[in-house]
Amino acid sequence: MISVVLLGAGNVATHLYQAFSKAKNANLVQWYNRSLQSIESYKNQVSITDELHQIVEADVYIIAVSDDAVKSLSSSLPFENRLVVHTSGSVGIHDLDKKHRRGVFYPLQTFSKTSELDFKDVPICIETLEKEDFNLLANLAETVGSPYYKINTEQRQTLHLSAVFVNNFTNQLYRVAHEISDAKSIDFDILKPLIMETAKKVQHMSPYTAQTGPAKRNDKKTIKKHLKLLEREDHKAIYELLTNVIKKTHGR
Amino acid sequence: MISVVLLGAGNVATHLYQAFSKAKNANLVQWYNRSLQSIESYKNQVSITDELHQIVEADVYIIAVSDDAVKSLSSSLPFENRLVVHTSGSVGIHDLDKKHRRGVFYPLQTFSKTSELDFKDVPICIETLEKEDFNLLANLAETVGSPYYKINTEQRQTLHLSAVFVNNFTNQLYRVAHEISDAKSIDFDILKPLIMETAKKVQHMSPYTAQTGPAKRNDKKTIKKHLKLLEREDHKAIYELLTNVIKKTHGR
Repeated sequence: MISVVLLGAGNVATHLYQAFSKAKNANLVQWYNRSLQSIESYKNQVSITDELHQIVEADVYIIAVSDDAVKSLSSSLPFENRLVVHTSGSVGIHDLDKKHRRGVFYPLQTFSKTSELDFKDVPICIETLEKEDFNLLANLAETVGSPYYKINTEQRQTLHLSAVFVNNFTNQLYRVAHEISDAKSIDFDILKPLIMETAKKVQHMSPYTAQTGPAKRNDKKTIKKHLKLLEREDHKAIYELLTNVIKKTHGR
Repeated sequence: MISVVLLGAGNVATHLYQAFSKAKNANLVQWYNRSLQSIESYKNQVSITDELHQIVEADVYIIAVSDDAVKSLSSSLPFENRLVVHTSGSVGIHDLDKKHRRGVFYPLQTFSKTSELDFKDVPICIETLEKEDFNLLANLAETVGSPYYKINTEQRQTLHLSAVFVNNFTNQLYRVAHEISDAKSIDFDILKPLIMETAKKVQHMSPYTAQTGPAKRNDKKTIKKHLKLLEREDHKAIYELLTNVIKKTHGR
C-alpha cells in the first residue's frame, strides 16, 4: 500500500484524486490546497488541509499545481528526505527543492473538469534521481491502471511539445473545419465520425502510412479548387503550409 | 428492397460492396468494373461484368470511380431515365450525363482497403434533382445503417475541403509529433491515448470550447521554450502559424 499526499486542486489534481480514491493499493492520506474552499466538498472522503505544517507523513507527495508555483511550494514543505514529485510536462526535476528525494509523475493527457477519464488511457511519464523511487512511482502508476514510461526531462519537454501538436493544434484544425462548414450551414456532426476514424487509424498504423488526400497525391487540380473555396486568409495560410509539408514528407 | 448496380472497384466501391452485401433491404444485383481482374474474387457472391452493354436493370446505379472518370462513365451507360449517382466529394451533380435521373451518394469517411468500417460511422451526403430520388437514396443509406444528410454541391465541396483539415492535415500533425518524439527516442505509443481523447472531446463539445494550451492562454514563456526546442524549420512554421491562429480565435 502506497500512501500519498496530494497538493493542489486544479484539473490534474482533481483527476488524480478520483483515481487514487478508487485505487486498491494506494491510500490518499491527505489533500492539501492553499485555499480550503476548492477542496472543501471532499472533506468527508479525505483529510484536507490548507496548512503546510499540518501535512502528514506519506510515501510520496504529489505537487499538482501550476508550473510557476512548483518550485516555491516544494521549498515551503516543512520536511526533507521524502519523495516529492511534480506532475508538470515542462518543469525540470531539479526545480524541486534539493532537500527532497525528487521525481516527476507526469500524466500525458488532456484533463477537463467535466468529463471522467479511465486512467488506463493516461500514460504516466516517470523521472527520478534514485532507482528505488522510480520503482515506487511505477507501482503507483499501476495502482490506477496507467501504463508508465521512463522519461527524462528533455524527453518530457519534447512530449509536452508533441502534445501541443496532437492536441491543441489538431483541435484548432477541427475548429477551422467548424468555421468553414458553419459558413455554408453544414451540420458539424457530419465530420465527427471522420475525426474519430482519423485518430483511430494511427493507433495501429504510423501517421506516415496513414496519410492520404490531395497533398500526398500532389493532385494540383483539387488543391487549386480548395484554395479557391477558402474565403479567409488564415485558413488559406494553414492549407498552403500543411499541403507543402505533406508534399515534402511524401517526396512530391 | 432496393436493387443496386455498383460501378468501380476502388476503396469506396469495395466498402460499399461489403456494406450492401450485408444489408437486408438492399439487393446488389451486379458489380461492373472496366477490368474484371480486380473484382474476380467476388464472382461467387455477386454477378460481375466488364461489359457496359451487359449491365442489368436496377433501382440505382452507383458510380464509385476516380473523379476524372465519373463524367465519361455516366455518358457511356447504354440506358437513360434511370437513377445514376456518383460518390465523389468534389464532382458536381451536373457532371453526370443529363440523360439520367441524377444524384450524389457521398460517404464522408476515410476508407482503407485493410480495415473494416461499420457504416453507422459513415455519414452519407445525398443530393438529387428529384425529391423521390432523394427518398430512395435516404432509404438506401438506412439499409446500411448510415446517418444521411441533404447536402447540395457547394456544401459537399466544402465538406470535402473540411475533411482535408480534420483528416489529412490532422494526420500530418500526428506525423510531426512522431518526428519530434522519434528524434528523442520517445515511444510514439505514449501519445496515442491523447490523440484519441482529443478526437473524443469534440464529439460532445465544440472545438472552440475544447481548446486548451499555451497558445489559448497566450503563455509566452512556454511558447518561447517550445520554439527553442523545435529543430526543424517546417515544424517551427507550423507551430508559429497555428499558435497565432489560436491566439486570434480566442481574442489574444
